[in-house]
Amino acid sequence: MEQLEYQEGRTEISHMGKVALIDRLTGDMESRNASTVQGIGDDCAVMRAADGRLTLVNTQTLVEGVNFDMMYTPLKHLGYKAVAVALSNIAAMNGTPRQVLVSVAVSNRYSVEAMDELYAGVRLCCDRYDVDLVGGETGTSRAGMVLTVTAVGEADDDTVTYRRGAALHDLVCCSGDLGSAYAGLLILEREKVTYQANPKFQPDLDGYDYVLERFLKPEPRMDIVKLLRSKGVVPTSMTDISKGLADSVLHLCRASRCGCEVYEEHLPIDYQTSRVCSEMSKNMLPVSCALNGGEDYELLFTVSQKDYDKIKNLQEIHIIGHVTEQGMPAVMVTPQNTTITLRAQAFQGLDE
Amino acid sequence: MEQLEYQEGRTEISHMGKVALIDRLTGDMESRNASTVQGIGDDCAVMRAADGRLTLVNTQTLVEGVNFDMMYTPLKHLGYKAVAVALSNIAAMNGTPRQVLVSVAVSNRYSVEAMDELYAGVRLCCDRYDVDLVGGETGTSRAGMVLTVTAVGEADDDTVTYRRGAALHDLVCCSGDLGSAYAGLLILEREKVTYQANPKFQPDLDGYDYVLERFLKPEPRMDIVKLLRSKGVVPTSMTDISKGLADSVLHLCRASRCGCEVYEEHLPIDYQTSRVCSEMSKNMLPVSCALNGGEDYELLFTVSQKDYDKIKNLQEIHIIGHVTEQGMPAVMVTPQNTTITLRAQAFQGLDE
Repeated sequence: MEQLEYQEGRTEISHMGKVALIDRLTGDMESRNASTVQGIGDDCAVMRAADGRLTLVNTQTLVEGVNFDMMYTPLKHLGYKAVAVALSNIAAMNGTPRQVLVSVAVSNRYSVEAMDELYAGVRLCCDRYDVDLVGGETGTSRAGMVLTVTAVGEADDDTVTYRRGAALHDLVCCSGDLGSAYAGLLILEREKVTYQANPKFQPDLDGYDYVLERFLKPEPRMDIVKLLRSKGVVPTSMTDISKGLADSVLHLCRASRCGCEVYEEHLPIDYQTSRVCSEMSKNMLPVSCALNGGEDYELLFTVSQKDYDKIKNLQEIHIIGHVTEQGMPAVMVTPQNTTITLRAQAFQGLDE
Repeated sequence: MEQLEYQEGRTEISHMGKVALIDRLTGDMESRNASTVQGIGDDCAVMRAADGRLTLVNTQTLVEGVNFDMMYTPLKHLGYKAVAVALSNIAAMNGTPRQVLVSVAVSNRYSVEAMDELYAGVRLCCDRYDVDLVGGETGTSRAGMVLTVTAVGEADDDTVTYRRGAALHDLVCCSGDLGSAYAGLLILEREKVTYQANPKFQPDLDGYDYVLERFLKPEPRMDIVKLLRSKGVVPTSMTDISKGLADSVLHLCRASRCGCEVYEEHLPIDYQTSRVCSEMSKNMLPVSCALNGGEDYELLFTVSQKDYDKIKNLQEIHIIGHVTEQGMPAVMVTPQNTTITLRAQAFQGLDE
């Protein structure tokens, strides 16, 4: 049993009790969605689906030391990110998120105030995306934190978008830019090593604000989902980019039984990502971060050629390639016109 | 990094890859429920709710060393139990389970064959309760296994049963018997200690089959839900008994804003539970196991007095007390007619 010293402003979770803790963390939340019938405080959350609509459900578990490192992850950011990651999966189905359930298992290393911080992030993300927190529990963990978020959303029968559905000659598109979250992780890992060598050393994070935010506080691209809706575009297939572009492209090709060509020169890469790569090593190419770096949470989707005019001028959407026949591989074409077969070899980051 | 030796019949998860592993574990499952539109293999599970029905969602996380001990938990039982526990929460709302999502995070201590075992249990429970496995992921854990089950179910607007709703003079009822799962845990812990002292010692589990099964392979009481339906009884409030009777009674009283009297002599306790208690210690009373032992997964509910005739002869249902006024405490009345105020002080079992 860990020995805990009394600290000012620190309340032991064991002193408060789990029921009181959940009350404190989630007590004053009001429902934003008509479909939310019963939230926290019973055995299940209860939702009503409107006639003929589809319910989407997705669960994500984040494990300390694997999916996040407490050394450089502020708890508020962690709470925000955990919800954002689950909502990203709802966005990836062309759906609208409505509810989340958040469960957290912690050792007594964490105080009630730490849980407050975590849930401040959870609430912020719920607020931002008009989502109701309707369930969850607090449990015990022997070592480190385990965070589980279940997201529930809605979609229409005729616009729900699966990974399957990409057809020959469809345009392959992605949102935002790629590889920047991994660049942020590289910076944080570098500063961690420096700090561990000399704890008096102040981390130097100036000028890396964009890539750091990309890693620490990703956003589910609901804005892209809404933008496509407003333009009358229903993607033929879609997924989010959580483990690098290569992994997501392979998922779409596998589910849609097709091949694919993406063009290296069309991959959207931010200048800060390129700068971080060149600082790190000669061998660290920005395109590798885009293909194999994880946690961008951008959307990868395919659209029919007939929708080209509707998307060609949208700033946040990049046409990066096209769908090829079943039996063809998923490849990247370089500016020198050589083709590289894509493999799922996501950089391991924290998740070995 | 742990060093792993080659073992016959053991396949490293890292050699197989996560996509192939999920395929292997869940590949050939067919949907049993019309509401299941899309199962595993996309960003979200997709369900269609029938017009006007309610969707129930619940998430449970089980952490190795906290919620289960691998030393005496066969993986197949663990998979079964994890699903059963989540389904128990659907039963506790008077609902019908339809889908589950199962996520597992493991260290490389576990092989593919171990995952097969785990999922054999998951499948068995899904089969038994006509539930579709529609989602989940495999992730990495630094130490031990983390198992998360999200259950989705349906309920009708006019029969969904919350913890709130108990009214003055309602009968307090429970299903099955209480304390037996905790008795099973006591036996397993005793044999573990003996084995650790002398590994040549064969565990002596003869004659404890009932309490062991209660702990290792609990069942969600869907049979009780169906029985009540068939008798035309809708409970006024309900929850499951996962952390001892006292904890569940307090939850119902708190949500329903009422007090409650339960009678010690009416608590259903199996003779094997009593025998285990007397073997363990003079001070270990069977009623303490019932009140504070966890993991029985029986149902605790209240019914209106007018339904007394419908339930009085049902073997698996026990009337253990009645609801008292708001402001009154939840108490147990002993055969000597003294009253003991109930407190949530669940035996910690594995969950400290």
